This record gives sequence, structure tokens and C-alpha cells, in this order.
Amino acid sequence: MRAAIFRGPRAVEVGDRPDPVIEEPTDAIVRVVLACVCGSDLWPYRGESQHPIGSIGHEFIGVVEETGADVSTVTRGDLVVAPFIFSDMSCPHCQRGSTISCVRGGNFGDGTIDGGQGEAVRVPLAGSTLVPVPGSGHSDQTLRSLLTLSDVMATGHHAAVSAGVRRSDVVAVVGDGAVGLCAVLAARRLGAERIIALSRHPDRQTIAKQFGATDIVEARGDAATEAVMELTDGIGADASLECVGTAQAIATAFAIARPGSTVGMVGVPHGEVPTAPTFFRNVGWRGGPAPARIYIPELLDDVLAGAINPGLVLDYKTDLDHVADAYRAMDERRAIKSLIRVGSL
Amino acid sequence: MRAAIFRGPRAVEVGDRPDPVIEEPTDAIVRVVLACVCGSDLWPYRGESQHPIGSIGHEFIGVVEETGADVSTVTRGDLVVAPFIFSDMSCPHCQRGSTISCVRGGNFGDGTIDGGQGEAVRVPLAGSTLVPVPGSGHSDQTLRSLLTLSDVMATGHHAAVSAGVRRSDVVAVVGDGAVGLCAVLAARRLGAERIIALSRHPDRQTIAKQFGATDIVEARGDAATEAVMELTDGIGADASLECVGTAQAIATAFAIARPGSTVGMVGVPHGEVPTAPTFFRNVGWRGGPAPARIYIPELLDDVLAGAINPGLVLDYKTDLDHVADAYRAMDERRAIKSLIRVGSL
Repeated sequence: MRAAIFRGPRAVEVGDRPDPVIEEPTDAIVRVVLACVCGSDLWPYRGESQHPIGSIGHEFIGVVEETGADVSTVTRGDLVVAPFIFSDMSCPHCQRGSTISCVRGGNFGDGTIDGGQGEAVRVPLAGSTLVPVPGSGHSDQTLRSLLTLSDVMATGHHAAVSAGVRRSDVVAVVGDGAVGLCAVLAARRLGAERIIALSRHPDRQTIAKQFGATDIVEARGDAATEAVMELTDGIGADASLECVGTAQAIATAFAIARPGSTVGMVGVPHGEVPTAPTFFRNVGWRGGPAPARIYIPELLDDVLAGAINPGLVLDYKTDLDHVADAYRAMDERRAIKSLIRVGSL
Repeated sequence: MRAAIFRGPRAVEVGDRPDPVIEEPTDAIVRVVLACVCGSDLWPYRGESQHPIGSIGHEFIGVVEETGADVSTVTRGDLVVAPFIFSDMSCPHCQRGSTISCVRGGNFGDGTIDGGQGEAVRVPLAGSTLVPVPGSGHSDQTLRSLLTLSDVMATGHHAAVSAGVRRSDVVAVVGDGAVGLCAVLAARRLGAERIIALSRHPDRQTIAKQFGATDIVEARGDAATEAVMELTDGIGADASLECVGTAQAIATAFAIARPGSTVGMVGVPHGEVPTAPTFFRNVGWRGGPAPARIYIPELLDDVLAGAINPGLVLDYKTDLDHVADAYRAMDERRAIKSLIRVGSL
């Protein structure tokens, strides 16, 4: 089959991989329809982290092609959303909602298993991992939104859930990447009354507003903190969502969190949260990699009902032949997030 | 009046202070009945932090002697519990339950206002700060338990609330000081099914068991982590309560927290929580100084009903004349927590 191959920094190209086959009775083979590039795929692309040479990507939707003998919840022909981690949903961590720590779980494209940016994927623990999409004849717009449930929309939702966003809250979102924009949408979905998006790019501000942002703050650093404090009458946000991970973004997210609140952290942290100052203001934090599998069913219902349209973050579209362009567009910040059309329904 | 005076490290002695008088119409004068020494009073005592020369202490119950013109919720003769911070209960932070950050609030014994270890205290914002105790003829045991609501029991409760302890949870408590023991009691009160107390002192283990601990772990450091993981079948605690604040205690509290859980932090941190490893396990933390004023009413009901008896942590008893002994007993770890009898009802 054809698939994106990570060959080293700045070198992701289409190439050949063996067709995946059922290896365990709990496996399924999924023929990929849509995939996309994650912000975290850019780290090895930029040489900032390690990645095995070979298959890459972990966000995809597709059609079940074949199932192992023990798979009963999905069947050949089903359209399915794959969360970015596979999990058994029965271990003690999964049972408590922490699929990320599944004792039998793992990552797509980790060097031992196919990534999502290819024509097909062997999905382990398929029965507990894949979420079938009801109905048929879904529009391209719906399919793109379903794709975001794999990771980016689930991650934005995790930021809002981790921060405990409630109806009528004032929420501030640090970061206008695809995750930050999805966090705006998630906050609105959970009933936030006011959503302050920190964004300095007009195209991203536009999507933030479509997703429910009521206020835009273009400043960064201390000036951003001042602006948010002014907008909140000196109180700070009821929920501050950190969707970047840089030291500056973390500092801002904590500075604008009101005393007693919880920061939702989903940007992979490249800085430290200072413990004592955070403690004395009774500001806490929760978050980490999103338990997407847990969130997909409820988000999927809202996508199908047309209540949310997170697929809008996919503003660059290409195909598997041009996967290198998909990476370049994001690397050069010409794209918020790149869609890769792989197959048809 | 006579009061404990902080004269410098290792020098807290009884001395003379001006009788407090009403300065603002929102003040009340409280004649102190019982006071106690906080673990945090030991930091300046040991020279580990600064403290103004003069009045000290912030945990007390007493009888209202006089009220300013604007005080209507308490009246002369009322037995009252004073939270360790005064607050207006109407500012945006108080309204959201974060009395610690009250815009008009402050600390007893901060150099500008009386501490609690003396015959009387001027209490600012008395109407919103003091909690009157219903009934009369309370036993000495009840009074001692009411005293703990000022700070130590409220703080133990804050650890459990911050960690989100729920019915049937497995809770681990790091620290067998007065706060840790109160955290055990708070966890049991919130319905924890199993409570693992990390304690190596037989006398403290006894109280931990009286308070509801089901398991005792005597080990420290990595051995403590191993022991808790073994007790929890490798899962970790649903709620880990950090009641010490040292780097080692923090490390243990996070190591034994199950993925996806929240550590309740109430020990004043003298170490850092490492951000990335915590993030990748989806472990979060909440906590800080307790909003005691918020918690006192519900805890008070349980004390009066005989449902909880947190006063058991006060295992050394003396009077104002011997306040120096109260500090020495705690400093030398002969006492878990020292009670100072100041006046009568």
C-alpha cells in the first residue's frame, strides 16, 4: 500500500508499506478515507523530537475492511473514527476514563504499527477502540468534522473538561492553533458565556469567532495578561485553557486564571508550572493527552446533529501523493491544519 | 492583655499587648477561649521564614465581647469559630469560594493585627468572618474539635475536596502530621472506602485508624510508592492527598496517584511538581491554603452531631503562661499539635 513515510527531519514523503493484515483476533483492518497532520507530527519533522523511520500519523477515519474473529462491535463496511490511541476499555485505567494509560494500549505510527497517514491501518483492540459512525451519505463537511474527533477536537474538549468549564463561565483560551480553536468550540458547547481567545492571526480569529469566541486578545505575554484582567474586571478567567505548551503560554494561562480555578492543560509542556505561586493562589491544573475514545461518542452525536463543525480547522487540503506539502504548509504556518484525502467512502 | 509574642527564632513567650479595641464598624473583639499552634508557626520559630516581632497565631475560638456598629450576624456572648483568614464573603473571589484571595481580607498575627494566641483579638470584617456556634454547654472535647475548624481540619478537608474524593474511592494520605490526620478524617467523611495513611509513628497511626485509615504504610520514598502500588493492585490511589510539602512527599504523592486523578495539595510546597511527567499521566493537582470560612459551617454541624472528632489531633495541652512549651513540644516532635487554653466560656 501507499503511505506517508517519515524519513527524517523535513522529509515526510509518500512511499510503499506492506499491506497490513490481521495479526490478532482483536485486530481490524481499516481502509483510510481521511487523515490529517497533528501539531505533534511537526516535532520530529522539525527535528525537535525522535520518531522511528517509517509510517507516521495518528488521526484518521475510514471504512472497516476486515475484522479478527474476536471483533464484534464493528463490521466490514462500517465507517469508523479511530482515536489516536488504541485501548481495551476494560483495564482499571480505561474503566476510570484514562484510556491514555491503558495497560494494553499503544500509539499508531510508533514504529511497530501503521500510522494513520496511509491507505490502510491495522487497528489493535479494534472492538474497543473504533467508534462506528451511524447513518450513511455523510457530507464532506461532516466527514472532516468526524476526522477531528480522532484527536484535535477531543483534545480541545479535554482542555475544557479538565478545567471544569461550566455554564455561564468566563473562559480564556491560550493558543489559536487547531487545538486552541477546538477548545473555544468545546467551551461554547459546555455553555461558557464569554470566551476570550488569545489570537493574533486574522484568519484564526475568524474561526475562533465562528466557534463562539466573544472577545479576541491580540497581545502576548504580560500585555495579554493585562488585557484579560481588564476584560474580566480584575478577576481573571473562571477557566483558563492552555493549548500551546511553551513557557510563555503556560505563564500566561496561569496568570489569567482566577484564584481557585483550574487550568486545563493540553499543550505538551515545554516549560514548568511554578508550584508555590500557583499553590498560594489556589490555582490548580489538570490535563494531558486526551482520552479521545471516551469523548468521541458524545462529540460524534453533536457533529451528526450539526451542532458543532470542528472540521473548519482543516484549512489546507491535499492528498497522499502530496503529503509532503501537507507538512510544509503547517511547518510554514500557511495552514492551521492539513487534511489528507486518502480514499473514498 | 497577655498574649504570645514572637521575639525571634526559638523565642515565643507570653508578654503584654495593648487591649484590642473596635477600630472599624465592621470589627468585633473576641475574647479567646482556646488557641493552638499551627505547623506554619514553626517556620519562623525555626528561623525558616520571616515573621514580624509581636503577636502570633491564627487558630482560635472565643466569645464575642464587643461588636462594631455594622456587625449584625454575631453578637456579644456568642461562641464563635474564627477561620485563619478574615474575608468579606462578597468580593468576586469570595463569591466563587476563594476566601483566601479576598480583596479586603488578611491574616491574623501579620504584624498589623492581633494573632490568635492571646487573650483577645480584634477581628476585621467580623460579620462575614466569624461563624457562631449554636447551642451551649459544649464539652471540652467538642470545643477542641471546633477549634480545629479554624485551620487544620479545614485544611485536611481542602485536601480531600481538591482531590475530588468521592464515595468508594481509594485515598492515600501523605503525611501524618495534624493536617494529614485531618485529611484522613475528611476522606472518610466524604465516603472513601479505603484510606491508606503513610505514617511511621505509632501514636499517629493510632489516630489515623481512629479517623478511618484502613491501611498504614510505614515506608518512605520509593519504598512507600511500591507499597501503595502493591496495595492498589498496581493502579494507584483514586485521590492522593499531599499534606507535607517537602520535595520527597510531593514526589511520593504524585507517584501513587492513579492516571487521570487529581492530587490534593495542602502542604506548603518546598519542592516542585515536575510538569511534563505529571501531564503525560493525566495527573493534575489542586489545592493551596484552605478557604476555611467556606467549609466551617458544614464541618461544624458534623462536630456538634458527634460525627467527627478532629480535636484528637491536639495531643499536648498547656496554657498561655506556658506557650513557649507549646512551641517546644511541637518543634521537638513530642506533640502532634499543641492546644493553648486561654480563657473560659
